[in-house]
Amino acid sequence: MLPIGSTIGILGGGQLGRMLSVAAAQLGFKCHVYEPEKNPPAGETSANLTTASYTDYSALEKFAKSVDIVTFEFENIPSRTLDYIESIVKIFPDRKALEISQDRLFEKNFLTKLGLDTAPYLKVDNVSDFKDAIKEIGTPAILKTRTMGYDGKGQIKITNEHQVSQISKTYKSFNHILEGMVNFTKEISVISVRNSKGEISCFDPGENIHENGILKTTTIPAQVPRALITDAILLASKILNELDYIGVLGVELFISKGKLIVNEIAPRVHNSGHWTQNGCLIDQFEQHIRAIAGWPLGDGARFINVTMENLIGDDILNTEMILQDSGAAIHLYGKKETRPGRKMGHVNRMFIKN
Amino acid sequence: MLPIGSTIGILGGGQLGRMLSVAAAQLGFKCHVYEPEKNPPAGETSANLTTASYTDYSALEKFAKSVDIVTFEFENIPSRTLDYIESIVKIFPDRKALEISQDRLFEKNFLTKLGLDTAPYLKVDNVSDFKDAIKEIGTPAILKTRTMGYDGKGQIKITNEHQVSQISKTYKSFNHILEGMVNFTKEISVISVRNSKGEISCFDPGENIHENGILKTTTIPAQVPRALITDAILLASKILNELDYIGVLGVELFISKGKLIVNEIAPRVHNSGHWTQNGCLIDQFEQHIRAIAGWPLGDGARFINVTMENLIGDDILNTEMILQDSGAAIHLYGKKETRPGRKMGHVNRMFIKN
Repeated sequence: MLPIGSTIGILGGGQLGRMLSVAAAQLGFKCHVYEPEKNPPAGETSANLTTASYTDYSALEKFAKSVDIVTFEFENIPSRTLDYIESIVKIFPDRKALEISQDRLFEKNFLTKLGLDTAPYLKVDNVSDFKDAIKEIGTPAILKTRTMGYDGKGQIKITNEHQVSQISKTYKSFNHILEGMVNFTKEISVISVRNSKGEISCFDPGENIHENGILKTTTIPAQVPRALITDAILLASKILNELDYIGVLGVELFISKGKLIVNEIAPRVHNSGHWTQNGCLIDQFEQHIRAIAGWPLGDGARFINVTMENLIGDDILNTEMILQDSGAAIHLYGKKETRPGRKMGHVNRMFIKN
Repeated sequence: MLPIGSTIGILGGGQLGRMLSVAAAQLGFKCHVYEPEKNPPAGETSANLTTASYTDYSALEKFAKSVDIVTFEFENIPSRTLDYIESIVKIFPDRKALEISQDRLFEKNFLTKLGLDTAPYLKVDNVSDFKDAIKEIGTPAILKTRTMGYDGKGQIKITNEHQVSQISKTYKSFNHILEGMVNFTKEISVISVRNSKGEISCFDPGENIHENGILKTTTIPAQVPRALITDAILLASKILNELDYIGVLGVELFISKGKLIVNEIAPRVHNSGHWTQNGCLIDQFEQHIRAIAGWPLGDGARFINVTMENLIGDDILNTEMILQDSGAAIHLYGKKETRPGRKMGHVNRMFIKN
């Protein structure tokens, strides 16, 4: 067990880092946030903040030496940065989960090998791969970068031959996959957690709705057959165990023809788990901190029905209106600048259990 | 409505300040904590910290000018300090409530004038007052300083004539009250909140058990007749309205012979309200921030039964054992040094509703 009063390093200072640092403080830990951008949301709630790039090795060394363990709030941290930190202090969750989730091809291969269903996919390293993949998978399909994509970035939907020939002409290099479209009726996600003793706990799966490639709402409970809920939890547990995972893992699932298709996994606290802040005894942020600290997991039982809604860009201007509903718990991230598509906060609304 | 991103000044950097600053951050506010002692618990979760004495007027001026509103986590702040701050920026709750609760005599007079029951009490300014009071109230009785007492400090229980003559000889001056003992069966408290529109919300009253003059546990729901629960809420509302109060107010009540006797009021978030962190949609800390920020109040409905237990002194050594219960939500304050009688944290345990 990580001793009370220890310092947890957090790579990334966005809203996830902010909410992690609050959870850590509640358990008596101090946080040290490392973030390249100035005045990050997590800086305001943490004991220490380093503002430096992920390639500033002298800053990384100082940071790594000042903390007892390290975690991260997003998965696209350069490998060399992580190597360097890991030579000084332990990182949770470990590199295996990160390597897999950082690369869409590795991720799909991992899931397939585990016997789980994914969208059809093929590796695209060059124009000829691309054309072959289109032939085999057909259109519509999605061309995705293998690395660095999030919130719909790094993705192109391919619907016709004209696009295929244009991309074939203009792309100088490929490091992509082509993914077939899944005709799904719903998307759900399982926020799961595992600690070093192998204990696993999953929050009730929520039902997600996206707008413009960004999560808009998560509603709990998901309106899907009970058997699928059980399957989803077993599936998440299988992934956690296979990875010997420590921390919170988000698993996004499509429901297609009554079956679960894994969309993607995220080795961190997850936007679709924000509802746990107001519906459970212990939320996803505290579960993550407990797991990485080697503490026993808490009870993630849900007391109420919740709809979580992201406040994106100008949605934050609706704050006053949202607050008229006393059953709305609002969470704002302290971001100085509102930009279209930027997550500014979220609201958890409770509703009567049906 | 205080705009999102505004800075809230908090006088006092203890655990209440820490939990207030976390609640403020969740609503998108920044906090600036002012605390004479070094490395205070609230410093680790706040954007800004000033370490200076309450009589350092240049530090106070800088602090007051850097924040948009001010609140406090404990009531024993020197009047001149508050006067000075108030000449620059607004303080919530306002001075009236503070003046009354800072002085046990004013408090008792205020409550009596409002038609509420208190323990019998008499002003003790000198030896002759003291002897007269003992004659009238009898023993056992409690001699209390009018100001600066908390957690049982500044109190002497008087049980016999020998004590009376000894105190009469040794005390050079008196600024006390003598209070009769109340034979109570239970102590309950009401955590109530009122905003600038006069909206009031009360959490379900909890039942308190003290050890050595310090709160040990609060259990919700209190096992008392429903009619008394209603009376307690009406009584708290009466106090809030009379004071034109803004913020959270804790009201401690004895139940004696089926009647409610007001023990004391605290113009701040209250230890006996810590259970709200794990049993409600919106907790007492967020209600306080919402109220002082001129925001609508949230829903304080309770979902589960909770026992809050303070971790005092070496109790913190039991953390590992406490965590074996997955239904225990632990909250630690980040205090560097454990001392007997010092509040180090608390644990909220959920239990089945009976």
